[in-house]
Amino acid sequence: MSSTFRVLGIAGSLRKQSFNRALLRTAIELAPSSLTFETAEWGDIPLYDADVEAAGRPESVLRLRAQIAAADALLIATPEYNYSIPGGLKNAIDWASRPPEQPFHGKPLGLIGASGGDGGTMRSQYHWRQVAVFLNLQTLNKPEIFVRRGADKFDAAGNLTDEATRKALTQYLQSFAEWIAFHKK
Amino acid sequence: MSSTFRVLGIAGSLRKQSFNRALLRTAIELAPSSLTFETAEWGDIPLYDADVEAAGRPESVLRLRAQIAAADALLIATPEYNYSIPGGLKNAIDWASRPPEQPFHGKPLGLIGASGGDGGTMRSQYHWRQVAVFLNLQTLNKPEIFVRRGADKFDAAGNLTDEATRKALTQYLQSFAEWIAFHKK
Amino acid sequence: MSSTFRVLGIAGSLRKQSFNRALLRTAIELAPSSLTFETAEWGDIPLYDADVEAAGRPESVLRLRAQIAAADALLIATPEYNYSIPGGLKNAIDWASRPPEQPFHGKPLGLIGASGGDGGTMRSQYHWRQVAVFLNLQTLNKPEIFVRRGADKFDAAGNLTDEATRKALTQYLQSFAEWIAFHKK
Amino acid sequence: MSSTFRVLGIAGSLRKQSFNRALLRTAIELAPSSLTFETAEWGDIPLYDADVEAAGRPESVLRLRAQIAAADALLIATPEYNYSIPGGLKNAIDWASRPPEQPFHGKPLGLIGASGGDGGTMRSQYHWRQVAVFLNLQTLNKPEIFVRRGADKFDAAGNLTDEATRKALTQYLQSFAEWIAFHKK
Repeated sequence: MSSTFRVLGIAGSLRKQSFNRALLRTAIELAPSSLTFETAEWGDIPLYDADVEAAGRPESVLRLRAQIAAADALLIATPEYNYSIPGGLKNAIDWASRPPEQPFHGKPLGLIGASGGDGGTMRSQYHWRQVAVFLNLQTLNKPEIFVRRGADKFDAAGNLTDEATRKALTQYLQSFAEWIAFHKK
Repeated sequence: MSSTFRVLGIAGSLRKQSFNRALLRTAIELAPSSLTFETAEWGDIPLYDADVEAAGRPESVLRLRAQIAAADALLIATPEYNYSIPGGLKNAIDWASRPPEQPFHGKPLGLIGASGGDGGTMRSQYHWRQVAVFLNLQTLNKPEIFVRRGADKFDAAGNLTDEATRKALTQYLQSFAEWIAFHKK
Repeated sequence: MSSTFRVLGIAGSLRKQSFNRALLRTAIELAPSSLTFETAEWGDIPLYDADVEAAGRPESVLRLRAQIAAADALLIATPEYNYSIPGGLKNAIDWASRPPEQPFHGKPLGLIGASGGDGGTMRSQYHWRQVAVFLNLQTLNKPEIFVRRGADKFDAAGNLTDEATRKALTQYLQSFAEWIAFHKK
Repeated sequence: MSSTFRVLGIAGSLRKQSFNRALLRTAIELAPSSLTFETAEWGDIPLYDADVEAAGRPESVLRLRAQIAAADALLIATPEYNYSIPGGLKNAIDWASRPPEQPFHGKPLGLIGASGGDGGTMRSQYHWRQVAVFLNLQTLNKPEIFVRRGADKFDAAGNLTDEATRKALTQYLQSFAEWIAFHKK
C-alpha cells in the first residue's frame, strides 16, 4: 500500500485572476494521486511587527502556521515583483518562521512560477531558494517550472491551455511526489 | 555655493527598538550637511493586491510615492529576514513601483543594515541590489555597511555607541553624499 | 565636438563558434560611432595561484590588465555555465583584480549574453553584477540583453540574423554609450 | 553494522598555505569515522574550451571526473574571489559537468569556507548553492561554516587553533555525515 502526502499549496499573488493562482490550481489537478492538497490564504495577515508579535500572534498567523505544521510538504507558486520575491507572501512567511516553533524544518519544498513577461519568475525563485536554506526546507532541484508569457499560456478563465506547459507541469508534479516520498520514507 | 540634496530614509523594520531604525537615525546624525533627510513610514500600507490597486491606490501608498518622487536619493536601512529582504518593506516598495509613474528611476540608493547576529544583513542587501536593477536605482557600490551583533554596538536607548561602526558609517555617508552629487550634477 | 570612448570587449567563451563571441562581434558592429572597441583574449591566462603571483605575474595577465587600464569601459558577453559565471573568464578577472592596482575601479560595465537554451544567461549576469560591486564597476541597469535559443538567432557563420535581437542590441549599445558618457563627463 | 561513505574533498585555492586547504585538512581530521576522504587537485586542468573538448577531454579532467564518479558525496572548501566563486575551481567543475555523464547527479554536497576578511565566504557559498541546483547536488542547508578573519583562527603552520571554530566544524561534519547517510540509505 502506497502512502499519500499532504501538500500545502500557496500562491504568491492576491489578485483573483493571477497567473500563479491559476498555475497552482492546475498543479493540483495534474498531481499524482499520492498527493492531497490544501491551499493557504495570507491576504489577512498584517505586516510583520515584532512589537505586535510580543503582544500575541494574530489569528491569521496562527492559522497559517497550523497549516504549515500539518503539511508534509509545501508548493509555492510565485510571481516575481521587482526581480525578487513578492513582499506580501514573504511577509506571511516571515511571520510563520518566527521561533520558537520551526514549522518549515526539514519539509520538502516545490517552487513553480508564472509571469506575464519573459523572465518566468526565475529571479524570484532563486531568492526563494536562499530563503529555503534558512528555513531548512528541502527544495527540489529539478525540473524547474518558469512559465513565460502567461497571457499566451492561460485562457481568460485561468485555464492552462498550453500543452507543452501542462506536460512540463505534470512531470514536475511527478518528480515532486517522488521527492516528498523520499524525504518522508 | 554647494548644493544640498534631499534623502528619503527608510528603515525596514516596524519594531520601535529596531537596530535598523537606530542605524538610520544615527546615519542622519552623522551625515554631511549637504544632505537633508526625511523618513518614510510604511506600517499602514496594506498588502499589495492588483485588484485593490485597480479600484484606486490607497492613501498610504500615494503618500509613500510622493515622498519617493520628491527625494533626490534613497537610503534604506534593512534587516534580513530568512536570508532575504523583509517582506513588509518589500511590499511597500512593490506598491510604490507600480506603473505608470517611475518614482525610483535613476535615483541614487544607499543600503545599510544591522543585525543581531553574524551575517550583518549581507544576504538581504544583495537581494536589494537585484531589486534596484529593475527599479533602475543607482546603488552605491562601496563602502558597504554590515553591522553585526547589534546588541554589542547599540545601547539600550538605541544609540550607536561602537566607535568603529560610527566611523565607518560617517565614511559611508560621505561617500553617499558624493555619489548623490555625482548623479545630480 | 563630441567625445569618443574606448571600450574593451570580452567574450566569456573560448569556443571559436561561440554565440557570445558572435554577440560581441555584432555589438561592435552595431555600436554608435562614439564607441571604439578593442577585444581581450584570455585563453592563455593560467589558473590563478597566489604562489605563482608572488613569483611574478604572468605576461598574459599583465597584458589583460593593461588593456583594462587603458579602457574607458568594459563590455562582457557572457555565457552561463552551471547557472553561474564561466570559470575561465572569472579566473582571468580574478587575476586582473589583484592589488595593488585597481584597473576596474569606477569604470562603466555593460553585460550582455547569449545561450543555446531558455535562460539567456540571466543567472550568470546577476552573479556578474555582484562581482561588479566588489570591483566597483558601474554596471548599466537597463536595458538588459538575454539572448535565448541562440541557434535560432545566429546563422551558421555566426551572424546575428534575428531582427528583434539586432534592434534590442542596437538600443542597448545606445544606452551603454550614454552611460559611459555620463560617467566620463 | 554501520556504513562508511567516501567523500571527495576539494579546496578552492591553489595556494599552498591557503586557509581553505587548511580548513579542508581540519575537516578531514574532525570528521566522524563513518566518512573516508580522498582529495581532488585541479591545478593542472586547462581552461574550459569546447573546441578542445571536442578533440578529446584532457587526462586531468578525466581524472577529476573519475574521482567525482567514485565518491558518495562532495565537500568543497571555498574561498570567495570578488564576491563570487573562485574562477579556477569553477573552471574545473565546468569541465567535470559536461555531458553525457552526470557525475554530480544526486550527490550530497557540503560547503565550507574561510576568508581572511569579514565576509567568511558567504557570498561565494550562495553562488555555489545556485550552481548545485543545476548539477542536482543535494546541498546541506545547516549548519553553515563561514570562517572569518582566518589569520586569527589558523596558526602559521595551517592548524585551526580556534576552539569555537573547531567545535563548529566538528558539528558540521556530524550533520554532513547524517545528511550523506540519509541520501544513501
